[in-house]
Amino acid sequence: MTETNLTQFTPEKHNRVRRLPERGVYDRDEIHAIIDEALICHLSFVQDGQPFVIPSNHARDGDDILLHGSRSSRLMQHIASGAPLCAAFTLVDGLVLARSVLHSDMNYRSVVVFGQGEEVVEETEKIKALRVITEHLAEGRWADARQPTHKEILATAVVRIHIASASAKVHNSPPADDEADYELPIWAGVVPFRITPGAVEPDPRLNPDIPMPVYVKHYTRKGWK
Amino acid sequence: MTETNLTQFTPEKHNRVRRLPERGVYDRDEIHAIIDEALICHLSFVQDGQPFVIPSNHARDGDDILLHGSRSSRLMQHIASGAPLCAAFTLVDGLVLARSVLHSDMNYRSVVVFGQGEEVVEETEKIKALRVITEHLAEGRWADARQPTHKEILATAVVRIHIASASAKVHNSPPADDEADYELPIWAGVVPFRITPGAVEPDPRLNPDIPMPVYVKHYTRKGWK
Repeated sequence: MTETNLTQFTPEKHNRVRRLPERGVYDRDEIHAIIDEALICHLSFVQDGQPFVIPSNHARDGDDILLHGSRSSRLMQHIASGAPLCAAFTLVDGLVLARSVLHSDMNYRSVVVFGQGEEVVEETEKIKALRVITEHLAEGRWADARQPTHKEILATAVVRIHIASASAKVHNSPPADDEADYELPIWAGVVPFRITPGAVEPDPRLNPDIPMPVYVKHYTRKGWK
Repeated sequence: MTETNLTQFTPEKHNRVRRLPERGVYDRDEIHAIIDEALICHLSFVQDGQPFVIPSNHARDGDDILLHGSRSSRLMQHIASGAPLCAAFTLVDGLVLARSVLHSDMNYRSVVVFGQGEEVVEETEKIKALRVITEHLAEGRWADARQPTHKEILATAVVRIHIASASAKVHNSPPADDEADYELPIWAGVVPFRITPGAVEPDPRLNPDIPMPVYVKHYTRKGWK
C-alpha cells in the first residue's frame, strides 16, 4: 500500500472493490471499527495451490492484525512464514427482502485485508500482543485472569500481520426494487440481525463466592447497540 | 473424497482436523446442519498465488453448495472456472472465559468444505437453484416474491460447488483450566451468543395494506433456539 495519507487506504490491485463499487469504503477509522467489532475473522492462505480458509480469533493493534495459536501448529508456522494472507471480518446486519427475489440482499459491513505474517518472538512483545487479543474478546479480562507463564508464552505462537492493503464494503439500505415492482402486492423490508449475549453459564466448578465481573454480566462490544 | 458411506465424510489430506482433532466431526448430517444454519459463508480462492476470501450468501443442495451473482462479475467467472475453492461456515456460540487467559476459547460450530465450482447454465436448473438460495435466507419467500424473469436469469450466474471433502469442528464446553488454577479467585464461565432478529423495518415505500409475512414477523432458522 502506498500510504498517501493516514485516514484512507489506497484502492489498489487486490483491495479495490470492483463489484458494486458504490459500497466500497477505504476510510481507515471505519475499517478499524469493523475489525474491532468482529468477534472472529476468516483467514485465507494457499498451500500447494490449494486455498484454505479458517475461522480465527484476532485483535487489531494499529494497522496490524494479531493472531495466536500453538507453536507446534503447522498452520501457525505457515501464517508466520511470510506467505501472502487474506483475512475477512464480516458483520451481518440484516436481511433485505425486496419484492423481486433477485434484488434480495444483506445489510452488512465487511472488511478484507491483505498482508503477510511475521512471528512475534520477543517475550514482552508477545505478552503485549496476548493482552490485546484477550482484551479484544472481553475488555477488562486481562487484569482479572491468570496471565501467561514464561513456559506458556514459549509454547504459544503470536503472529502479526501488517495490513498492506484493505477495503470495506458496507450496505445499509431498504430494498432497491425495479420501479415497476413497487406496485406489486408483495411485502418488502429489512429484518435486522444482531448478536446478543444469552444467560451467562458460570463454570460448574466455579467457587460461588466469586462474583461475576461487570464485563461478563453486561457483555457488550464497541459498535453494539 | 472417497464416499465410503453416506453418513460420513472421509478425513483426507485437506479436510482432516489436525489441530485439536478431538473437535473434528465428519458426520454428514451434522455438517449439513451447520451449513444450513449459517446465513453466509466465507469463500476462498487463489489468483496468481494470492489468496482471497470474501463473504457470500449460499445455500446447500444435497452435497452441493450453491452461489449466485452477476454474470459480468469476474469473481463469479473465476468461481465457475473449476479452480480449487474452499468455503467456511462458522457459527459463533459463545465466549469461554477460563481462569488463565491462554485457556480462553470460543464455543463454535464450523465447517470447512473443499471443491470446485461449475456454472449452472440450463434455465430450469438455474431457477431451481435460485429458489433454494432464496429459501435458505427466508423459508417461504420464493412463493411470495416476484420470481426472476428470463432476462434476469440470463444476467445471473449460478455456480454449484460439489463438496469433494468436508469436516466440521465443534466446541461446546465450559472452561478447561489447569488443575491448579481452579483454586484461584478468578471468575470463569461461558457467555453464550446468538443471532437475534430485531424490530422489522418495513420498506419506507411499502403499501401499508400489505401484511407482514409470518416468516418475517417471527424470523427464525433451523438450529436457532
